[in-house]
Amino acid sequence: MDKQINFDFVLFGATGDLAMRKLLPNLYQAHVAGLLHPEGRILGVSRSDFDTAGFLAKVETDSKIHIKKNFSEADWASFIKRITYVSLNVNRPEDFKVLADTVKARRETDNIVIYLSTAPKFFEPTCEQLAAVGLNAENVRVVLEKPLGTDLQSSQEINNGVARFFKEDQIYRIDHYLGKESLQNLLALRFANVMFEPLWNNKYIKSVQLTIAEELGVEERGEFYDITGALRDMVQNHLIQMLCMTAMEPPASLDADAVRDEKLKLIQSLKPLTTADVAENVIRAQYTEAEKDGQTVNGYLQEHNIPADSRTETYVAVKAEINNQRWAGVPFYLRTGKRMAGKVAEIVLNFRDAANHIFDGSQKAPNRLVIELQPNESIRLYTQLKMPGSGNHVGQAALSVNMAEALEGRRAEAYERLLLDVINGKLALFNRRDELEAAWAWVMPIMESWAANKTTLHGYPAYSWGPEAARELLARNGDKWHEEQ
Amino acid sequence: MDKQINFDFVLFGATGDLAMRKLLPNLYQAHVAGLLHPEGRILGVSRSDFDTAGFLAKVETDSKIHIKKNFSEADWASFIKRITYVSLNVNRPEDFKVLADTVKARRETDNIVIYLSTAPKFFEPTCEQLAAVGLNAENVRVVLEKPLGTDLQSSQEINNGVARFFKEDQIYRIDHYLGKESLQNLLALRFANVMFEPLWNNKYIKSVQLTIAEELGVEERGEFYDITGALRDMVQNHLIQMLCMTAMEPPASLDADAVRDEKLKLIQSLKPLTTADVAENVIRAQYTEAEKDGQTVNGYLQEHNIPADSRTETYVAVKAEINNQRWAGVPFYLRTGKRMAGKVAEIVLNFRDAANHIFDGSQKAPNRLVIELQPNESIRLYTQLKMPGSGNHVGQAALSVNMAEALEGRRAEAYERLLLDVINGKLALFNRRDELEAAWAWVMPIMESWAANKTTLHGYPAYSWGPEAARELLARNGDKWHEEQ
Repeated sequence: MDKQINFDFVLFGATGDLAMRKLLPNLYQAHVAGLLHPEGRILGVSRSDFDTAGFLAKVETDSKIHIKKNFSEADWASFIKRITYVSLNVNRPEDFKVLADTVKARRETDNIVIYLSTAPKFFEPTCEQLAAVGLNAENVRVVLEKPLGTDLQSSQEINNGVARFFKEDQIYRIDHYLGKESLQNLLALRFANVMFEPLWNNKYIKSVQLTIAEELGVEERGEFYDITGALRDMVQNHLIQMLCMTAMEPPASLDADAVRDEKLKLIQSLKPLTTADVAENVIRAQYTEAEKDGQTVNGYLQEHNIPADSRTETYVAVKAEINNQRWAGVPFYLRTGKRMAGKVAEIVLNFRDAANHIFDGSQKAPNRLVIELQPNESIRLYTQLKMPGSGNHVGQAALSVNMAEALEGRRAEAYERLLLDVINGKLALFNRRDELEAAWAWVMPIMESWAANKTTLHGYPAYSWGPEAARELLARNGDKWHEEQ
Repeated sequence: MDKQINFDFVLFGATGDLAMRKLLPNLYQAHVAGLLHPEGRILGVSRSDFDTAGFLAKVETDSKIHIKKNFSEADWASFIKRITYVSLNVNRPEDFKVLADTVKARRETDNIVIYLSTAPKFFEPTCEQLAAVGLNAENVRVVLEKPLGTDLQSSQEINNGVARFFKEDQIYRIDHYLGKESLQNLLALRFANVMFEPLWNNKYIKSVQLTIAEELGVEERGEFYDITGALRDMVQNHLIQMLCMTAMEPPASLDADAVRDEKLKLIQSLKPLTTADVAENVIRAQYTEAEKDGQTVNGYLQEHNIPADSRTETYVAVKAEINNQRWAGVPFYLRTGKRMAGKVAEIVLNFRDAANHIFDGSQKAPNRLVIELQPNESIRLYTQLKMPGSGNHVGQAALSVNMAEALEGRRAEAYERLLLDVINGKLALFNRRDELEAAWAWVMPIMESWAANKTTLHGYPAYSWGPEAARELLARNGDKWHEEQ
């Protein structure tokens, strides 16, 4: 275990949804697991005019309910002793002095985390005030929550604003997918084993599918979602990160910049999308009204807070290509959607067909490696095996491993891992500015083409696997989505 | 399913142990499964002076008890209707005429199987008499049970004797290991999948282990065993067949001769063993008295019917090398033993270490593919995966498949498959003369060296994993037996 480092965790937006649902419950889990320095503090910061007792009362009602395991009143009591509340108005420099005094009154050398769980428009002014009171020293890290902008330009503006006061290696940009054990395990699978890397290229792989499918619709987040859409919400960040971990070259080490250099290189190797590419290889769609279990389920346009003429996509499928030695000619199909037929995040590598068919049998199928990130973290290698009985018929079965069963050890939620890494100053699982901007640059032609309404907006029935057009996208290459394989 | 072919199955040695324990029970299973032509007959043949009713009475007492599943009195009643008994003295030509009349009275065109479950010394005279009455026509096949000789010369003599009356493609030499689903599956695993063949060579494989371990001692078979020994009983046949299926080149098809050509080529590629090789790379041993569960267990020399000065080996380990492009430099460790610590038949491919170690962790171990033939037919691919938690530690877990769970279908015993293949005229799972003799040729230097007492006879405690010398054999190459990995 790492040596525990003393810290102050300063949480801007402490009364917000993310803080209550995710950040405090995950800090609680780290606390229970003994992973936090005993003197480490959590300083809740927001505009609300609470004192610490008032804030704790809110935490008691709004956050405690989100602790799903390992709860005990004794642990909870010791956890909340770490919490102090500081009321702060971003426009009032004197509030920042109070904050600085609160932080510095204890120590000046340990790690200070500034977690900005606020709207991006507050990032620059907040950072400016933090710098004014010295809270941008070398031992201070600033954590930026997504969305970091809505396009390349706004993302650059946000990054520029923060960069005025913090150096790049002080900046921790969260993509919680990178905190998932299952995604980190991809690097172990690829680079700690001798048998996958030789197969991990266009000689043996025919196509790759990356899916993040949600069963949920937009729920109560309609207002946010309608100005965001699936491309910004999922593709530009999570799916491109999954793509990087799947396809990047071996890094020289697991140091933050060694890994991020390779991710950047991979994103830069993505074939830029022309307007014609977007028309041909990118599918956007909205879910439509459907029947489920005898009930009518809303389409996207019937959801709360969605304008009746909205053209926001709830589904995206992209056929991406990687212009490098390893992957030239291998389509990478990225897709994500809401109100799909199942909830799953997975990576499917479809192998080419075996060179020579000396076996017969109607069940013959190419090999397939399925890495399921959620809900059941597992790896399945679909293999042809001899069917019992006379003859030489083959059938398909999977060599599989369920991670939770196979590997002992406490499996933390993504956020807990990321929060601990920030506290301990480990940058590897956070996005560097250049990779993030490269990802924006790659999706920009899609956004521009859509904004100009140059491509069709398809529909797909709620709780289906997406629009027919996405099926056709794969069929053109002789491929099928995983649920149809 | 194959078209059923009408047949007469003529079983010499019908009152013997193999017939009662294995052959009739497996024919019963094929009968129950509907795999036998409804008119197919079983003609029991032996010297005993039974009529059919008398033979059936013996079958009732001696064979029925060996039917472990799918038994019903109705099925049994319909099965034994297939059985006729013919009393026959190998030295009396007139008895063969009776047999021929019995066979020919029914039909002359269907398949006739002559199963010689007798001592090899009777093969040639029996075949001669069969030929004399025309029972060597094209539709007649002769099945030879092991042991087919005790060395290269005696094997050649037996084969020559049979070859005077039967053509090679009429001769079915049984090695019941080839009837095992798990062994046949090796070819599917290797050649119906795209992802194993690229790894199946000296670039990725460091060493291979083939084990057939028995917990049983010699039991009541001391007299037979002491003149046979583990090398003849297991290595020359079963282990070399396992080696062939593991290491041979892809055959052009699954036709009998295409497969057997490749097996022959592989055996011929085995590096011949010099006297020095035998001294250095072959370990022979006998089990010795030991304690188990508070009881003293006999050593081999204390077993019933074993001479006190016997030097017969109950354990052999051989480090074999294959002189071809694919396998040069990869040791193949073959071992078999009685009274070992466990009962298992398995193939273990140890991969080379991953080229680059960017992951840390004390549990790091090379990859390993374990193909367990019995008792639990399964495949396990030991893989390095990320251990849960902070840091980049890896641990080992296996992607695995249990065949019986994964693939539906009736799993026949080895003998049933082989008996059906004989009836249906399929030669692929039987040994061709040249491969068998090549296997004898390869083990001859071991037998000669041992006969001249040029190497040590080691001891190993009953119910252990073998002698220390076998451990040292692997240690010299930096390898370990599977149970110590």
